[in-house]
Amino acid sequence: MHTAVQPREHVSSGSRGRTARVAVAGATGYTGQELLRLLARHPAVTITAAMSSSARSATSGTPSSPRRLPALAHIFAGAITPLDRDALARDTDVVFLALPDKAAAELAPALLEAGVRVIDLSGAFRLRDQATRARWYPETHELPGGLAYGLTELERPAVAAARLVANPGCYPTSTILPLAPLVAAGLLVTDSDIVVDAKSGVSGAGKTPSERTHFSEVHGSVSAYGVFGHRHGAEIEQGVGRPVNFVPHLMPLDRGILSTIYLRLAPGTTEEALASVYEQSYGGQPFVRLTGPALPEIKHVAHTNFCDIGWRVDASGRAVIVSVIDNLLKGASGQAVQNMNVMLGLDEATGLL
Amino acid sequence: MHTAVQPREHVSSGSRGRTARVAVAGATGYTGQELLRLLARHPAVTITAAMSSSARSATSGTPSSPRRLPALAHIFAGAITPLDRDALARDTDVVFLALPDKAAAELAPALLEAGVRVIDLSGAFRLRDQATRARWYPETHELPGGLAYGLTELERPAVAAARLVANPGCYPTSTILPLAPLVAAGLLVTDSDIVVDAKSGVSGAGKTPSERTHFSEVHGSVSAYGVFGHRHGAEIEQGVGRPVNFVPHLMPLDRGILSTIYLRLAPGTTEEALASVYEQSYGGQPFVRLTGPALPEIKHVAHTNFCDIGWRVDASGRAVIVSVIDNLLKGASGQAVQNMNVMLGLDEATGLL
Amino acid sequence: MHTAVQPREHVSSGSRGRTARVAVAGATGYTGQELLRLLARHPAVTITAAMSSSARSATSGTPSSPRRLPALAHIFAGAITPLDRDALARDTDVVFLALPDKAAAELAPALLEAGVRVIDLSGAFRLRDQATRARWYPETHELPGGLAYGLTELERPAVAAARLVANPGCYPTSTILPLAPLVAAGLLVTDSDIVVDAKSGVSGAGKTPSERTHFSEVHGSVSAYGVFGHRHGAEIEQGVGRPVNFVPHLMPLDRGILSTIYLRLAPGTTEEALASVYEQSYGGQPFVRLTGPALPEIKHVAHTNFCDIGWRVDASGRAVIVSVIDNLLKGASGQAVQNMNVMLGLDEATGLL
Amino acid sequence: MHTAVQPREHVSSGSRGRTARVAVAGATGYTGQELLRLLARHPAVTITAAMSSSARSATSGTPSSPRRLPALAHIFAGAITPLDRDALARDTDVVFLALPDKAAAELAPALLEAGVRVIDLSGAFRLRDQATRARWYPETHELPGGLAYGLTELERPAVAAARLVANPGCYPTSTILPLAPLVAAGLLVTDSDIVVDAKSGVSGAGKTPSERTHFSEVHGSVSAYGVFGHRHGAEIEQGVGRPVNFVPHLMPLDRGILSTIYLRLAPGTTEEALASVYEQSYGGQPFVRLTGPALPEIKHVAHTNFCDIGWRVDASGRAVIVSVIDNLLKGASGQAVQNMNVMLGLDEATGLL
Repeated sequence: MHTAVQPREHVSSGSRGRTARVAVAGATGYTGQELLRLLARHPAVTITAAMSSSARSATSGTPSSPRRLPALAHIFAGAITPLDRDALARDTDVVFLALPDKAAAELAPALLEAGVRVIDLSGAFRLRDQATRARWYPETHELPGGLAYGLTELERPAVAAARLVANPGCYPTSTILPLAPLVAAGLLVTDSDIVVDAKSGVSGAGKTPSERTHFSEVHGSVSAYGVFGHRHGAEIEQGVGRPVNFVPHLMPLDRGILSTIYLRLAPGTTEEALASVYEQSYGGQPFVRLTGPALPEIKHVAHTNFCDIGWRVDASGRAVIVSVIDNLLKGASGQAVQNMNVMLGLDEATGLL
Repeated sequence: MHTAVQPREHVSSGSRGRTARVAVAGATGYTGQELLRLLARHPAVTITAAMSSSARSATSGTPSSPRRLPALAHIFAGAITPLDRDALARDTDVVFLALPDKAAAELAPALLEAGVRVIDLSGAFRLRDQATRARWYPETHELPGGLAYGLTELERPAVAAARLVANPGCYPTSTILPLAPLVAAGLLVTDSDIVVDAKSGVSGAGKTPSERTHFSEVHGSVSAYGVFGHRHGAEIEQGVGRPVNFVPHLMPLDRGILSTIYLRLAPGTTEEALASVYEQSYGGQPFVRLTGPALPEIKHVAHTNFCDIGWRVDASGRAVIVSVIDNLLKGASGQAVQNMNVMLGLDEATGLL
Repeated sequence: MHTAVQPREHVSSGSRGRTARVAVAGATGYTGQELLRLLARHPAVTITAAMSSSARSATSGTPSSPRRLPALAHIFAGAITPLDRDALARDTDVVFLALPDKAAAELAPALLEAGVRVIDLSGAFRLRDQATRARWYPETHELPGGLAYGLTELERPAVAAARLVANPGCYPTSTILPLAPLVAAGLLVTDSDIVVDAKSGVSGAGKTPSERTHFSEVHGSVSAYGVFGHRHGAEIEQGVGRPVNFVPHLMPLDRGILSTIYLRLAPGTTEEALASVYEQSYGGQPFVRLTGPALPEIKHVAHTNFCDIGWRVDASGRAVIVSVIDNLLKGASGQAVQNMNVMLGLDEATGLL
Repeated sequence: MHTAVQPREHVSSGSRGRTARVAVAGATGYTGQELLRLLARHPAVTITAAMSSSARSATSGTPSSPRRLPALAHIFAGAITPLDRDALARDTDVVFLALPDKAAAELAPALLEAGVRVIDLSGAFRLRDQATRARWYPETHELPGGLAYGLTELERPAVAAARLVANPGCYPTSTILPLAPLVAAGLLVTDSDIVVDAKSGVSGAGKTPSERTHFSEVHGSVSAYGVFGHRHGAEIEQGVGRPVNFVPHLMPLDRGILSTIYLRLAPGTTEEALASVYEQSYGGQPFVRLTGPALPEIKHVAHTNFCDIGWRVDASGRAVIVSVIDNLLKGASGQAVQNMNVMLGLDEATGLL
């Protein structure tokens, strides 16, 4: 349907010889590096560029030598180059944007215009409602056509057809996946409160040092933040379709989110009823693992693209749902590659297991 | 009123020269060591015995040499001796029990009988209702007379008069202190759900190694446990007088609990209204610090006897309360010494600031 | 030379269609799970068995249901089965032993006898000198024929031909790789002291809980252990050919070893001279990365099979060498798979990047 | 000798009623806060001022409200005020400088001039040799009279008489205490190398966020830094009187230093010989604890003013010494208060146990 870009949609599992040309804009942050790591070993893509707008944050490299990332030596042979919109528009099939919201909002339209497909890891295009978006992302503007919200398991057909994928936030991924099927199945008591107490590692805050992420402030501590005012709350409510009391917490670990969700279910709802709903939604999906009453732990999903979901229900209809993801993978770069696989018609798990 | 023990109630802030004789039964666990550390520098007590039932867990000491704790060298000069009920009954004014529930339940009556005052850090005597107690602490039995529940700020007169203090659990301390005043003031919507999502360091699980507390299982991970089945839930409900959906979580840190409490307040209730209630309950109390909308963090209370409480309310009446304590101090040994101070008629903060 | 097993040596990069049958004995420990994770995504092998001698430590599974590892759901579909020597001898080309020393020493000969190639991750077969071996591994006995010490980069031809590979210890891997080339090149002052101060994460201590690996004992602490008495010291001295003062330390992290090596070099030796020696030894090797004066960090190699080596030399001939590995990968399971690749004639990096 | 300040030297253990007036310049950093915590509960001093040059780093406080530190609520009632040299010179007996080197170098002379005694926690006055000092602290200048190096156990008489105490660096404290007695006793082989491999928590790097101290960079990692170029190396060599190969490492913990020291002893030197030397130097000293062959761990000294020292010697004369301190206490603020106690003629341990 998007004839302009047809020529680039040439990768499929059936044509092994051809690979998609992919680029990462914003390659030196945590999600950018994780993208490079995943894409470098992906059998169906070639990295044509790894760009960064900030030469100051270079981990190595002098003015006269190309800049490289020490952790990626022997994995990704290329250098980090300055951000170059024209080169991205010219030489790539899919561009990953791992940039600040504003930079992503500015860069995406030009790339789409040039026929490049875009997977944006920022928040710029996640919120559909314009007023809500204007409140939480005032620096962004219009939504382009061909846009899909990239929560892969729930939006697969839209992602497959999309020109621009708004890759979900880490908290929303860990929350909407367990909540949406229960709401859709009508299992919740009408108008009952939904509480989401989310616990995140520090890498979700990005690579820029701050007092909040200073080692001595986080080690041995736990803190709540963003109460009644975190923009991921709006994204969660968009995905769930109901008000949610969402409070994120910072934990002394690097990677991973555990979300504990408190619900009121219709009287008589059993753990087996939830199992059935989840099985219907996620049975056979490669990256959702259902653990039932054996609640999942962050350790089980760290450094993977899985979302593990467990649940408990008591006789009075109170339910506690626990989900875990790696915020840099299923919560960011892993899901971005999963979306790319869907967009390219590849097996969804390619390069991710 | 307890004439039998009158002779031992000789310590007061007015009689500087005399000190109370105190002993710790169960001195090698984390709470026991913390007690020794606090009591050793307490200006109004003398440690007459530090006993342990387990010679196997000795950190140092051979059959022929007295056993000592390396971390307490130069702080507590005494040796750890085998548990000796008669010696405790004979030579002490106050005995701290830092023992398993069953051992505490067996030892306390004999000590009370001998006129010794007892502060019990186990769960044996915390639950007043016999059926509830039988469910969660089946190994324990009758409640002796002269018993007080040692949540100091809320039970000071009872503690002052008590022969036996049931020192509260760590989770209940961190939860009842912020919740009880709001419930008492009638601020909560009738029958609305109360959710307590508690996040604890690992020292709360004690000193005995297990797979759950193995470093490699906890580091870099977060997990929920005891959903709908943690006995501190019953203790919290006893203290609050309402059902509470309490879920504890294990965090990768050693000391500290942060409890996030989700409430529905009567419409129109403001943050200032909560401030007023809290100020009335805790204003001027040495160990409760009210932080208002600047939510507290574990780092602020680690290695102290404080409970910090902060709160946020939104326009729709949703409230988020956050409290933090050090689970080994305000959640155990610190509060035990605070109770001892009250029992002995000392300034409540003696030796604790 | 071992004609009996010829029929099983059928895997090569040239015959894509055929895969080697591999099994893991000791699949539930940390190295065993890491082996399963690597082998499950390895394109040239099929896992025919994942066995464990201990049914007690099952993470899940009841007597009537097959036992599975939650972290490996959707990665490795098989169940964990009881240890079965005959099945291993019958159905596999390569068996990985991730067992205690004694169990490995007993099992390996029978498998070799049956023509199976064995990669042993225990210490049973690492020390060549019988007296030294008897001292540090008294429970083991004779060395079988066809044995190679599996420090891949330095022993590739021997590994390729071996029937039994003694996979090196984690500390020796992190120490011999940086030291051996310098000693071989004659750069060290004769009879000068070699100090190796090694810092390890806790996963190196295995999965069995103990006081030493209890979270509350390790978090916020650092400790030295095994001074003058760690058996990896003997393995290092075997690999280096000189006495080494090796002291391991336990760090509050899960994965990774950083070894700091202190040397006296022949006067006038420069950093460039070391660079040249290292380049000659490791240039072009996929899993050794030379960082020069920019010293490596554990973060750069965690969850990878790399060994990063950096170095500094001062004008007086003092040298400080720093090497880092992931103890579970290059220090155990990753190097084991690297050795398997060499044994099977595959590209050495297959499944490891 | 400094008669001008005689009137202020009025505090002794014999005159309970009178207390010294003390102030902290640089009160919001980690060492500054630790000083306030210690001084607030010290029975013989009154805090007259807690000043900070930086209003920007305030944890709380607006232009119109006094600035306070949340962790010190209920401990220190005063506000943090702007740095005011005249007030310090006027109203205090002892001023603690917890400032950058340059600021301390500028402020100290004026205070000394005014008759105030100064304990400086910066590096400005630690190195006696002018050339060495010019190299490592180029921003500082002359050394004033009445200066003592405040390694209390080794310099007690000088500290008692001093007008200005240069409080030692954290690494030097942890290294000179174990090394100096052995060197003085002639136990080391002449010209043999001394290797000091030091492992530190992150709080030693101060409170200013940087990439090196960003949580995600430190957690799960270990790194060496400052090889052949850390200014604490010069301070250690000054204290030991011999060249030392000192390499500090950053560990994923907040507080504490463990130094592992590698020595060559004169042939035949036994562990008992070291025990005897240490006993002679430190027997009866409140803050040095000798652990012998049971090597100390950071956990034993965290949040205390102790330096624990253990040692092992092998038959060939190789020695491994391990020392541990809390870098913020014995390595900074605790030792500063210890020095103050000595200066004021108080019991050295006052307020520190």
